[in-house]
Amino acid sequence: MLLPESIQSLITALERLPGIGPKSASRLAFYLLRASEDVAQDLSVALANLKANTAFCQECFNITEAGRERCEVCESPKRDGAVVCVVEEALDVLALERTGGYQGKYHVLQGVLSPIEGIGPDDLKIKELVARVANGEIKEVILATNPSMEGDATALYLQTQLKQYGVHVTRLARGLPMGGDLEYADQNTLLRALSGRQEMS
Amino acid sequence: MLLPESIQSLITALERLPGIGPKSASRLAFYLLRASEDVAQDLSVALANLKANTAFCQECFNITEAGRERCEVCESPKRDGAVVCVVEEALDVLALERTGGYQGKYHVLQGVLSPIEGIGPDDLKIKELVARVANGEIKEVILATNPSMEGDATALYLQTQLKQYGVHVTRLARGLPMGGDLEYADQNTLLRALSGRQEMS
Repeated sequence: MLLPESIQSLITALERLPGIGPKSASRLAFYLLRASEDVAQDLSVALANLKANTAFCQECFNITEAGRERCEVCESPKRDGAVVCVVEEALDVLALERTGGYQGKYHVLQGVLSPIEGIGPDDLKIKELVARVANGEIKEVILATNPSMEGDATALYLQTQLKQYGVHVTRLARGLPMGGDLEYADQNTLLRALSGRQEMS
Repeated sequence: MLLPESIQSLITALERLPGIGPKSASRLAFYLLRASEDVAQDLSVALANLKANTAFCQECFNITEAGRERCEVCESPKRDGAVVCVVEEALDVLALERTGGYQGKYHVLQGVLSPIEGIGPDDLKIKELVARVANGEIKEVILATNPSMEGDATALYLQTQLKQYGVHVTRLARGLPMGGDLEYADQNTLLRALSGRQEMS
């Protein structure tokens, strides 16, 4: 009641975002009020255009510009169509691209199996992955779902689904992260690092 | 280059907000992409309307609806015009109102003295506060700037400015916060709690 309607509705809209609670929401709203006009305007326009200007690649389900059928990676003649890296989200594609070390293609599941949240195989782009593999061009499928309970379960499920097609199914290596500290590594990570130890050449 | 233009511009706009780094910005952008259409739309509309629908109260410089000259507090006949609580920001007014224990009026400085950031007395609503006090109706000025270096310096400066008008100038009490733990209190807080100790009745 003390706040003008326009601020209250902005706070309410901000609160619906993940990781933004009531306090951050009001702090952001008041920041936007003080900031120059174009900060709020740019954000408003970007939000309004968001959905209209994006689409999903019909091959790998990565995000792409509206009107395009396939994403940049799938269209590129330089990428190796024999290797497909399966990730949970479009953000993971970005992370892998940033490494500059991957030349294959992708497949974005758009989520992860999670019985608790009621997300089953049919809610993900698993059928589509199986269809791509069944096509025969793919030789290796790298399962790059997150190293979490759900990610591991999804990888396991995908493995059983893909077995019959005779493709090479691999999973990203586990171990100590770069810059990590042995002393602070959790025991699962350390166990994985031990069991996956590699010969030094 | 890998991201569609519409997502990249949303990420850029989100990154300009305080407390939101590149990672949170892309996470939020992808969340908005997946979320139902109206989450992004509501936010977009609220942002577009923000500045057009708000104004500052011409008496206390709190935020109010556009077209109103004075805010709800200043207009209320129930509020005691003899007491004015000076705060840094409109959010502080909200915090004090939430306590339900204050019946006076407010004065929002719209910032705090900060030589490092180049914010001097002329950048704040200090002239306007002095003018209100000079008017004669006010008997007590409660300095409720934050208990920080800048807040304390601002309070000190205001005290010197207001001295000549013979008003009662007070500062919010310092001490241990409710639910706090003596063991974890920093030494300044503990020192203030000691020196400000009160007789139990």
